[in-house]
Amino acid sequence: MEELSADECSRLLATQEIGRLAVNAEHHPLVFPVNYAVDGTTIVIRTAPGTKLAAADHANVTFEVDEIDRRTRSGWSVLVRGVAEEVGPGHRADLVARTEATGVQPWAPGEHGRWLRLIPTSVTGRRIVPGELPPAVDPRAYL
Amino acid sequence: MEELSADECSRLLATQEIGRLAVNAEHHPLVFPVNYAVDGTTIVIRTAPGTKLAAADHANVTFEVDEIDRRTRSGWSVLVRGVAEEVGPGHRADLVARTEATGVQPWAPGEHGRWLRLIPTSVTGRRIVPGELPPAVDPRAYL
Repeated sequence: MEELSADECSRLLATQEIGRLAVNAEHHPLVFPVNYAVDGTTIVIRTAPGTKLAAADHANVTFEVDEIDRRTRSGWSVLVRGVAEEVGPGHRADLVARTEATGVQPWAPGEHGRWLRLIPTSVTGRRIVPGELPPAVDPRAYL
Repeated sequence: MEELSADECSRLLATQEIGRLAVNAEHHPLVFPVNYAVDGTTIVIRTAPGTKLAAADHANVTFEVDEIDRRTRSGWSVLVRGVAEEVGPGHRADLVARTEATGVQPWAPGEHGRWLRLIPTSVTGRRIVPGELPPAVDPRAYL
């Protein structure tokens, strides 16, 4: 397993459009798939009003993106820790415009109109190189 | 967006082998890809000693599995909430045997030897049906 550099994490984050937002709510760390885009170092997420948004706003959250190939058993995972903030009328117009210009679509129909910015405090990642893992089928099963 | 029944969530959980374990640690809801298997209603996860394991043992955790097609913009997501417990010498031999018989591989090389069982307290899921989402490219961009 290889730890990824900050630059590599940034590059990988820009290659995907679906990640998972984790927030603390209802006594659990809840995880939701979301669409996202990257604006500089900030993660822009679009979501509906509700549990996610209420729990995320001004809270410590994480955002996870990965790409894993089940066949070759290789892949990578990046975890962004940070603070989330809902973008609203209290923000500068240019920030609102820049956020909306990312064009992030809601993950689910009916999830409209609310934008979250996740300001990272740390970004870490790791990569699994093919061949490092044992084969999915354990040959000992045939002995 | 369609809410999935408990039966459908169980069926979908059995189709995958990689999910994401979320635990509270270091003031954030941390998310880690893990390999898993299903033993009855219990999720069996294999992981290394460290942050994940220490934070998960006897704690409220969640486990998320999804399958999302970026091209058709459809997919599903299942979220299991529950309590995790490390399987150890204090457990009945048959439980240890059944856990190990799932054959779950560690996600990353070097992650060996520790087994977690996640006993669900709730399982929820949702599905996005193709065509429900607007196209990935906004036609207004060309006006």
